[in-house]
Formats: sequence, structure tokens, C-alpha cells
Amino acid sequence: MARTVETVGILSPGNMGHSVGQVLGDHGLRVITCLQGRSERTRALAKQADIADVPTYQALVEEADIILSILVPAQATQAAQKVAQAISETGAEVAYADCNAISPQTTRETGELITEAGGRFIDASIIGGPPRGGSSPRFYVAGTDTRAFEALSQFGLNVIVLGEEIGQASAIKMCYAAWTKGSTALCTELLTAAKILGVFQALEREFQQSQPSMIRRMQRLPSVPVKSRRFVGEMEEIARTFEGVGLTPNILAGAADMYRLVGSTHLADRTPEDTSPLPSLAETLAILASHLNERAP
Amino acid sequence: MARTVETVGILSPGNMGHSVGQVLGDHGLRVITCLQGRSERTRALAKQADIADVPTYQALVEEADIILSILVPAQATQAAQKVAQAISETGAEVAYADCNAISPQTTRETGELITEAGGRFIDASIIGGPPRGGSSPRFYVAGTDTRAFEALSQFGLNVIVLGEEIGQASAIKMCYAAWTKGSTALCTELLTAAKILGVFQALEREFQQSQPSMIRRMQRLPSVPVKSRRFVGEMEEIARTFEGVGLTPNILAGAADMYRLVGSTHLADRTPEDTSPLPSLAETLAILASHLNERAP
Repeated sequence: MARTVETVGILSPGNMGHSVGQVLGDHGLRVITCLQGRSERTRALAKQADIADVPTYQALVEEADIILSILVPAQATQAAQKVAQAISETGAEVAYADCNAISPQTTRETGELITEAGGRFIDASIIGGPPRGGSSPRFYVAGTDTRAFEALSQFGLNVIVLGEEIGQASAIKMCYAAWTKGSTALCTELLTAAKILGVFQALEREFQQSQPSMIRRMQRLPSVPVKSRRFVGEMEEIARTFEGVGLTPNILAGAADMYRLVGSTHLADRTPEDTSPLPSLAETLAILASHLNERAP
Repeated sequence: MARTVETVGILSPGNMGHSVGQVLGDHGLRVITCLQGRSERTRALAKQADIADVPTYQALVEEADIILSILVPAQATQAAQKVAQAISETGAEVAYADCNAISPQTTRETGELITEAGGRFIDASIIGGPPRGGSSPRFYVAGTDTRAFEALSQFGLNVIVLGEEIGQASAIKMCYAAWTKGSTALCTELLTAAKILGVFQALEREFQQSQPSMIRRMQRLPSVPVKSRRFVGEMEEIARTFEGVGLTPNILAGAADMYRLVGSTHLADRTPEDTSPLPSLAETLAILASHLNERAP
């Protein structure tokens, strides 16, 4: 039986987080956050989504029935530490769902912080873009007591229970993103190489003939740089996931290298609010190629 | 104007080489090879394709107008050394086209061996499967004098001239195979990880819903192991190509790791002549997963 949920905490109302909060709020739940140390942009998104700001983490854990951690991977552990401390200080009865794109190992470490403090830990992950227009990404969950998260399926979220083992929800996300973001890193690399080596046009003709799906991938490539910086940590978490089961970390470590490279160009400075046209594929590759030439010894 | 070509040497009549030789022979050219040190399987394929065996490399360079080197990447340099020596010893007027999946750097090194010996060097690469039933893969060529190769377009081969710069034909092959074989390595890795982490079935359902092209890739996966050992060297050549232009070698080094892993299982022992049914995807992944468990400390 699902637990009763009235108040949901969101850490933090960034791109994905504020959309999730908005959906839950639209379905009648009270949605809160703690904006301590968050950016102006996150504050604006919280306001836009009608997410209430509570002053402290202690207030957050006391008022919320469940807290969803939706962050960039590098911030996942620190957020759990803050929440664990607040649970210890208050003795609050709260569930904490780590929805971040982190490895099963990092998830287990995060879970221990929460359970040792006295919280209920739920392993979760999100596959698909932010909810909008009535559609929801898939929220995969795992753990011995996932009822608080399951209850959110009555408030607009698509929740899929995987099992009792902490790490499974993280694992499916890691394997899925290995494909979507790993293959995009590989595409970006080989097209940049083709550009530098003077065979881009011939390669494009070859792909048109024998790999037409690559042409669609190429058209989407100019939208990648703006997301590249937050992909670095995710690629490193997937590398850790694979290494943890005895597989090579190198493919995903290389994907992290690629997003680090793309993220070091001015292409990555563009904000999500910028509505000017994206550069073309040719411009994008030319900028990457000249960036490499500048770095060359 | 195309050079006149009457006799083509093939090194060596393996899977791709014997099919190419057969097409050229069917179109009226004399096709020869030198089977010194080649396997019984290659000898059988040469016979099957009516490719004449000449006793020495000296005879090969003297009788052939053009020699096509079609080998696994690791054998490319040694073959060029043997041919260069034979050219030096005989003063033969012959063109040598290196069609192997090697980096532009390795191609330039190979080219120097040939030109210093007095041969004409053509950079070439093959994209697509062996010619059969009237269809031909694309033979990309580059160099200052590619006429001997262009002449083969009158004898059943699809020849595309890229330009004068040695390395361009190799470059297009490296970038293309980075995608086809690199993405297959990535798929193999993430599916093996999903299997070990207990989320394979949930991931398969997720792919069915949001990445249907992955389902087709998954169906093709059981045919990969038998080719995996010869892909290792190709992945290393692509890593070298990317590193040479300042890009990360890690993605492709990881792809080489994956093919090394797959190649170390008994799945890779199957011969191309084996007509028994391939293992299923589930069986293939189970074998990879248990192989990793056995290797684990």
C-alpha cells in the first residue's frame, strides 16, 4: 500500500527538478525546497514553478514526507550529507530518493549516509526529458520501502518499481545513458576528427548512403555543447559503474574527455534561456577543430 | 587517364581479399597472390576464387601492375616491408595500394617504405562488406597517382578518389569504423553491465519504448564475437588517428578493450564456415558475464 504523501521536497529546482515540482504541485501536492547556496537561475525556476523556499535543511526534512534529490551527479553526495545531518539533528521521519545519474556504488554510499542518520533511502533514476504537457519521464525506483515514491504516481509521475536492491535504479540509468550520451560523445569525436582530417564531406556522403541514422544524429549535434559540462560527471559515474563489474572504464572515460573538451569552448557558455539560433553543424565542428589547433603544442 | 592494368596482386586472399580477387578475375583480369606463410583457410579461399599463387614476393611485384594489401591492421606494415624489399631487389614498376583499416600516420609510414623502395604508393580503404552479387563496397583512394586503382573501376570495383594527400582514404575509414565498430563495442559493454547488474530486462523494455533502434542493434550482437579479435587492432588504429589530431584516444582504446574481452571467450572461436545457429543474445551476454565473474579477483 502506498504511503500518504502531502509535501514533497525538491533538491534542487533546476531544469529537471523544477519541472518535476511543477507537475506535483499542479496535482495538488505541496512542493518545497531549500535554496541555500543555489544560483539565481534556480531561484527563478523555483518561483516560476511555485515551489516554496524553506529557510533551512532542518525545516525541509521536518516538513517533507519525501525529498527528491535531482542534481548534477557531482552534487549528489554533498546534498545527501546535508540532508543526513538535518535528519540527525531533527529526528525527522522522511524518505530520501536519490534520483541522480550516479553509479550503483555512489548510490549505496549515499544511501548509507541517509539510513545511518535515520532516514528511509530510495534508489531512483530518471529516464527521459522533464515532464511537460501531461507526459512524464520514467522514474525507476528500488529499495526495501519505495511506497512514498510509488505514491507520486497518483500525482503525475510515471513510477516503475525495479526491486528491493539499492543500486538497480541507478544501474538502469547508467546503462541507458551509456548509450545515449556515450554514443553522442563518439559521434562528436569522429566528426571533429573528420573535419580536421579533411574528409568530412566525403564521410557525410558515405553516411547518407550507408548509415542514414547518422545524418539525423549529426543534425542534433549543435544542441549538445550547452549540456556538455554537466555530462562530464555522469560519464565518470558510468565509467565507475562498468569498472565495478570488471568491464573497461575507458570508453566512458573517453566520453567524459569529449564533454570536457566541448565544455571548454564558448559553445558551452550559451544559457538554456538563449533563444537565438544554434550554430550550424559546420560551425560547431569548425569551432571544435580550431579549439584543438589552439591547444596543440 | 587510367593506367592499363592486366594483373592484380592480392595480399592476402582472406575474407575480403578473396572476394575482391574473385570480382576482378570475373571481369577478366589476372589475379595473383603469394601464399608464403598464409593459413590453410586463406589457401582454400585463394583456390576457390581462382587466384594464382606465385612462389615469391619478387615474382609478385614483377608480374602485378598493382598490388592490393587487404589484411588485418596488425599485418599491414609487415606486408609493406616484404613488398618494399621485393621492389628494391627487382626494380619492379608496380603500384601498391594499402587498403587496410589503419591510421593516416601508419599509412604514411607504410607509404614511405614503398616509395623509398621505388614503388608507387596509393592510400586506399574499403567501406562496406565484401563484393558479391554485383554490388561492391566503396574503395576510397588518395595519392598523387591513383590511376592504377581507378582503372579497377572498369573491372567491378566502386572506386572513389578523395584527393592527393596520403592519409585521406585511411582517415575516412577510421572515422566511419569509429562509429560502426565503436558503437557496437559500447552496446556490448552496456548490455553486459545491465546483465550483471540485474536490470537487463527492464533496460530492454525501456529501449523498446524510447530507443527502438537499439533493439535492432541488440539482435545483431550475437554475430559480433566471431569478428572481435580482428577488430582489436582496428580500434587501436582509430585511437591513434584521434590522438594524432589532439582528440582523446580513450573511447576507442576502450572499444579495443571490449573486443579483447569478447575475443577471449570461446564465442570468438567459431569459424566463418560454421553454419550452426548463433547463440541467442541472452546466451551471448550470459557467457560474457560469467567470463567476467571468473576473471574477478
